[in-house]
Amino acid sequence: MDKRRIGEELAAIVGREWVISDPDELTVYECDGMTYQGKALPDVVVLPDSTEQVAEVVRFCDREQLPFLPRGAGTGLSGGAIAIQGGVIVGLNRMNGILEIDLANQRAVVEPGLVNLTLTQAVVDRGYYFAPDPASQAVSSIGGNVAENSGGPHCLKYGTTAMHILGLELVLASGEIVQVGGKTLDCPGYDLTGLFVGSEGTLGIATKVTVRLLRQADAVKTLLASFRTIDAASEVVSEIIATGIIPSALEMMDRHIIKALEAWLHIGYHEGAGAVLLIELDGPAAEIEAQAKGIERICAQHDVLDLRIAKDEQERTLLWRGRKGAVAAVGRITHEFYLQDGVIPRTKLPQVLREVEAIAERNSFVIANVFHAGDGNLHPLICFDSRREGELQKAIAAGAEIMRLCLSVGGSITGEHGIGMEKIDFVPLMYSPDDLEAMRRVRVAFDPSSRCNPGKLLPTTKSCSEANVAYRPHRVEREGLAQRY
Amino acid sequence: MDKRRIGEELAAIVGREWVISDPDELTVYECDGMTYQGKALPDVVVLPDSTEQVAEVVRFCDREQLPFLPRGAGTGLSGGAIAIQGGVIVGLNRMNGILEIDLANQRAVVEPGLVNLTLTQAVVDRGYYFAPDPASQAVSSIGGNVAENSGGPHCLKYGTTAMHILGLELVLASGEIVQVGGKTLDCPGYDLTGLFVGSEGTLGIATKVTVRLLRQADAVKTLLASFRTIDAASEVVSEIIATGIIPSALEMMDRHIIKALEAWLHIGYHEGAGAVLLIELDGPAAEIEAQAKGIERICAQHDVLDLRIAKDEQERTLLWRGRKGAVAAVGRITHEFYLQDGVIPRTKLPQVLREVEAIAERNSFVIANVFHAGDGNLHPLICFDSRREGELQKAIAAGAEIMRLCLSVGGSITGEHGIGMEKIDFVPLMYSPDDLEAMRRVRVAFDPSSRCNPGKLLPTTKSCSEANVAYRPHRVEREGLAQRY
Repeated sequence: MDKRRIGEELAAIVGREWVISDPDELTVYECDGMTYQGKALPDVVVLPDSTEQVAEVVRFCDREQLPFLPRGAGTGLSGGAIAIQGGVIVGLNRMNGILEIDLANQRAVVEPGLVNLTLTQAVVDRGYYFAPDPASQAVSSIGGNVAENSGGPHCLKYGTTAMHILGLELVLASGEIVQVGGKTLDCPGYDLTGLFVGSEGTLGIATKVTVRLLRQADAVKTLLASFRTIDAASEVVSEIIATGIIPSALEMMDRHIIKALEAWLHIGYHEGAGAVLLIELDGPAAEIEAQAKGIERICAQHDVLDLRIAKDEQERTLLWRGRKGAVAAVGRITHEFYLQDGVIPRTKLPQVLREVEAIAERNSFVIANVFHAGDGNLHPLICFDSRREGELQKAIAAGAEIMRLCLSVGGSITGEHGIGMEKIDFVPLMYSPDDLEAMRRVRVAFDPSSRCNPGKLLPTTKSCSEANVAYRPHRVEREGLAQRY
Repeated sequence: MDKRRIGEELAAIVGREWVISDPDELTVYECDGMTYQGKALPDVVVLPDSTEQVAEVVRFCDREQLPFLPRGAGTGLSGGAIAIQGGVIVGLNRMNGILEIDLANQRAVVEPGLVNLTLTQAVVDRGYYFAPDPASQAVSSIGGNVAENSGGPHCLKYGTTAMHILGLELVLASGEIVQVGGKTLDCPGYDLTGLFVGSEGTLGIATKVTVRLLRQADAVKTLLASFRTIDAASEVVSEIIATGIIPSALEMMDRHIIKALEAWLHIGYHEGAGAVLLIELDGPAAEIEAQAKGIERICAQHDVLDLRIAKDEQERTLLWRGRKGAVAAVGRITHEFYLQDGVIPRTKLPQVLREVEAIAERNSFVIANVFHAGDGNLHPLICFDSRREGELQKAIAAGAEIMRLCLSVGGSITGEHGIGMEKIDFVPLMYSPDDLEAMRRVRVAFDPSSRCNPGKLLPTTKSCSEANVAYRPHRVEREGLAQRY
């Protein structure tokens, strides 16, 4: 079927104004937050406004054997929302309603296109919030968060998106509409909700999402601690956790980040600081008072250079300002960067960061590190300049080396950005062929003809080549991008 | 293949002394904690001591097309470990080692036959514990907890078993050995770990389990509050949660339980008490001090008759004594009981408990309630006497009515006991045919010939009759059974 016919058939389902097939307009959809050069245009973008329309679109794709994929805000960082094999992008932005709020039972039912932060804004006055807080939360959609099992700084204490999703309404690749999970915790039968969260749009399209809402903490305390070395800061991280304190955030920035931030925002970090920890506690006031005392003690034992505790909301914002501006600050010191995402056991932080530094030196790069230290989720920013011959390839190779490093210490190739296209070639380094075969059984069970976001999450059995799009990182857009990380 | 040959072939894999085929010896395996009359004998029980042996046994079953199922301590309450179609029971009791403890990263790798409490005992001196605490934890195995996604009083705060399992080594129905998940949280790809936890042995056999260990709380505070009515106690439950306090346990007992306990243990509950709450807080001492004050205030606002706070470990044990003896106490006042397990939204507690009472009255039964109020997980004990004509059937019908009641308010047919054989006919009341079909896709993907614990968890498409074994509840064994609930 030609593109024009596809557009017409889809227009009959959703209305002409909600079908995009003009090549110029389609360029908006050629990539997501992973701005590779190897972009791909969908044949058509369709913007349904109900579950029934989504199901009809999917059934049409089934009849015509067209690939399709869901897309929310397009802020994903691993290329999960790129139509790598063309076909139909199902944009869920119009399905952005809050269908039900049940505060007494701490539940809400929302549509997938709802922006993450909008949900919190709807309940914050009554003392509740939606916990997953990817840095993109002001723009990214809850459906996208579900697809990628998004994390965020506060997931150390509250867990990633998976912990906050109770049930889903799904349109499967066959066009069937099914309900998985429900409003109660731990529904009987197979945990298909858990299976779909993080499945990167490869098992179907979520059309309704039942989420858990949390009660806001009584009080928050934010501390900023500077140390001479990464080792000292890492030991503090381990000791805090070992004492049983789970901060709501425990973030680390290395000397490159500190330097870039100082040059830009003049935060006033201690001059000798080789690592800064941003530590946030939440809970009953009495509890966090006691915990803060414990953390001060631990910091002192590790020769803290400087320890600041926010006295009010204004100072708290100030302490977070550096962390939130960290990625943008790096944008000021490099032509481009390649942002990695890997996970390691917390206890391996000093060793791994030393080896990342060695990789940087061998390549004459700067690799800056700002990351969720509490759960060992690294975000190295490999700084390079693609105008210099071969440097792009070296940056990619350095990224791969960091991936292998994470794996060698028992870690993982992604903490919160997903596999998408970006990491698909690394998957076989983490899982054996038999382990992958177990995942493939699930994929085939739900998508026997491989048309549901093809080329994502799982390498194909034949080869990984379909995912091998030439890498070309984005030109850094300074400030604008910072919120994503 | 006849039973003798099956036994011989299996003996060649695990050694003759680890194969049980004598009919008398097999009776030990004819049922689990669900002591239906409709017991079923396996053809053979085999007790492997390694993953490789399990895989060889499963490959043998695959070649011979024999049904098989894993079994731990056999304490499950829904008949999950009964060989309903005969075949091979794979007893995992010899595989009970602790393979690795990594306290710095709060991980352990254990074998499935390890008794739940043994793991905590191995790390408690160093300040850690394994959180899932089914009442059976002194005898039930971690593999069984994984299969049933076991809960327990403290799962209100810490979540059920699924929240504490990071990875699994599995033998699939084909005999392949695969690794799912790993040591890091949120491994990329499909969350097969989450899928297998709670799959009741229908997707394969776990041969290694990577668990999360938690740091013990600094302090614990236990309160016992008596109220005139269930309504008052229920409102207190809702208000505690609404203030943002998550107690580590929040258990309720009704007047039948109170009366039975008083007659037996003379706990000294307030004379006018129609409901008692056992509330436990854990965390930093300062935190729980503040939370206890808040709870006292809420209790006072709801005309608490009596509020006791344990001053020391000894008094704490005393306050728990009633709760732990509750099921045994009911055993003293009835010939038999049928213990149900259902979930409702917390806010529906007063309404549902009133309707449970009405069901009791219509049937001239006593239905006693002791349950995890904090997460709305009911455990009605339907008291009856099967020596009286028709009473067994009436008890079963009352149980079914309670199930439908839970569903009608948006709840679930099981909180922590699993579906097994017991609840299989209720599953279609909770899920539509399409929803069930989605689960079936998963089952078929891993067990295409339906030999992996057949007759459990999912009703077959043809009919549910294979699971319809005549119900005959156990004669109450007083004390002995109490620990299970």
